[in-house]
Amino acid sequence: MLSSKNLFSSINKDISELNINLQKMIGAKHPILYAAAKHLFKTGGKRIRPSIILLIAKITAKDKKIKPEHQRLAEITEIIHTASLVHDDVIDDCDTRRGLEAVHNIFTTKIAVLAGDFLFAQSSWYLANLNNLEVVKTISKVITDFAEGEVRQGLTNFDITISIEDYIEKSFYKTATLIACSCKATAMLSNCNKNIQNDFYIYGKHLGLAFQIIDDILDITSQTDKLGKPAGSDLKNGNLTAPLIFALEENPQLYKLINQEFLYENDINRTINIIKKTKGIQKAKDLAEEHIQLAIQVIKNKFKCNNTETLILISNYILYRFN
Amino acid sequence: MLSSKNLFSSINKDISELNINLQKMIGAKHPILYAAAKHLFKTGGKRIRPSIILLIAKITAKDKKIKPEHQRLAEITEIIHTASLVHDDVIDDCDTRRGLEAVHNIFTTKIAVLAGDFLFAQSSWYLANLNNLEVVKTISKVITDFAEGEVRQGLTNFDITISIEDYIEKSFYKTATLIACSCKATAMLSNCNKNIQNDFYIYGKHLGLAFQIIDDILDITSQTDKLGKPAGSDLKNGNLTAPLIFALEENPQLYKLINQEFLYENDINRTINIIKKTKGIQKAKDLAEEHIQLAIQVIKNKFKCNNTETLILISNYILYRFN
Repeated sequence: MLSSKNLFSSINKDISELNINLQKMIGAKHPILYAAAKHLFKTGGKRIRPSIILLIAKITAKDKKIKPEHQRLAEITEIIHTASLVHDDVIDDCDTRRGLEAVHNIFTTKIAVLAGDFLFAQSSWYLANLNNLEVVKTISKVITDFAEGEVRQGLTNFDITISIEDYIEKSFYKTATLIACSCKATAMLSNCNKNIQNDFYIYGKHLGLAFQIIDDILDITSQTDKLGKPAGSDLKNGNLTAPLIFALEENPQLYKLINQEFLYENDINRTINIIKKTKGIQKAKDLAEEHIQLAIQVIKNKFKCNNTETLILISNYILYRFN
Repeated sequence: MLSSKNLFSSINKDISELNINLQKMIGAKHPILYAAAKHLFKTGGKRIRPSIILLIAKITAKDKKIKPEHQRLAEITEIIHTASLVHDDVIDDCDTRRGLEAVHNIFTTKIAVLAGDFLFAQSSWYLANLNNLEVVKTISKVITDFAEGEVRQGLTNFDITISIEDYIEKSFYKTATLIACSCKATAMLSNCNKNIQNDFYIYGKHLGLAFQIIDDILDITSQTDKLGKPAGSDLKNGNLTAPLIFALEENPQLYKLINQEFLYENDINRTINIIKKTKGIQKAKDLAEEHIQLAIQVIKNKFKCNNTETLILISNYILYRFN
């Protein structure tokens, strides 16, 4: 079985440094903002995004060493990700995030909007100071894509005509774009040519899509205590995801439940149980696996080295999250 | 008497172009975002910020002509300003802005957060595409300053120990920094040397401070219908501004009203009436005038030309707003 501790051993030191830097970068000047930012930083997760960036840095850099600019890009990516989570909480009105109460409930919506703005602003500032216009352009695009993705999600809420293609497009803007663009920017900082930059963009895009599909499966299959947020919260918000979209093909009962926007108390549980009886979850898992394979395919033969092996293991590890 | 029509005649064509571009830049892809953005763009105001930028462009450019990059910077500045207004509405929970209902009431908080993020993101994207790293750094700083300013404002709400110095610092982050940095960036785009860049920074800083002081006076002296937002709304939010801070020195009755956070229905009106009986408003006007003079002083003799004359007239025009 894969152990996440061993998996990340080659970049353990860098990730510890990143954790320290993130705290420093957000600054201790304002107790409220600091608390809001810390709130999310300390819950941290596995730092998957920065780990991928640091490994790609090792793969692509001329001397196989992570440059300070790579390290900074990994930090910026995590700050942007956190900023988007803080604003997502306001937008989704979700009560819990990563098992802690959502920032906007503890600190009010006001502080959540501010904290998100502050984090986005900090990331722009650090980004500009990487002194690489191409990287600035590539990462600026991500923030535009986020807003685009949220709007698309808003427009397709409770929309039973949503196709898997629509879902993939929505997931691209919401999740995959940040990973794709930061993988590409990592290669840029290593002065790789356009083809290699593009390889890592494609790698990141498929990895990000798989990541989102698995997150959406967990929203259906996990218990609230394990998930760190209420199970079925996507459904509640009308965010229709892969397992449900596949299940819809098999069981038309679901149309009614969605159309009435899960009106009755037990509707979410009923929907989850119906989905579990269809092939929806398996099909979603297959789709995630397919994207992981597409991601691995891009890098497997072109960049043969130990770090690429680790990157492939991490890519597979993402699939194991739901086992 | 100054007529705003004549005042802006030398850049009328450029401002019309700017209005068209702003609509285009925000894009018509998403009806909701478009509506939210349009909502503020159409209420427009006098486009004071872009007008100042375009005039400084004419003053500083080698051939005295506005470059496409100057035009774009003027647009970016107006987008950032609008983004900050949209998020301010969520933060202040203010019911009306520029006479129209606040975006977050019509379109819900969700869309307001999104629309603000979208506008900030668009501005970062256009900014990166100016292809000038120094300008990117200068303007990125502004967005960090906004968040800083809002937090400072939050921390000093209903705080009767606030000094005029604290108030000026808060106003710097909230208003003056955008004007100062965009004036500086205009000179950067004209390839001016550091001294000239700094002159326009100082000019913009003092102009911005005067601008904020006058806005704060209008919050006390204007009728709701004329102001486009409820009179005394700063007070209601606990945002203590120049006229009140000066009035506090004269009438200690105000301490109690602030300390009880304008608890009773008539407290805001009582406070406004007390302020009007002190020298608070006159002292605030004098402070604004002082900053306008400091702004004019920087540019008057160094950059003698017709456009500088117009810029000085516009600077004075800002003072006339409350007459």
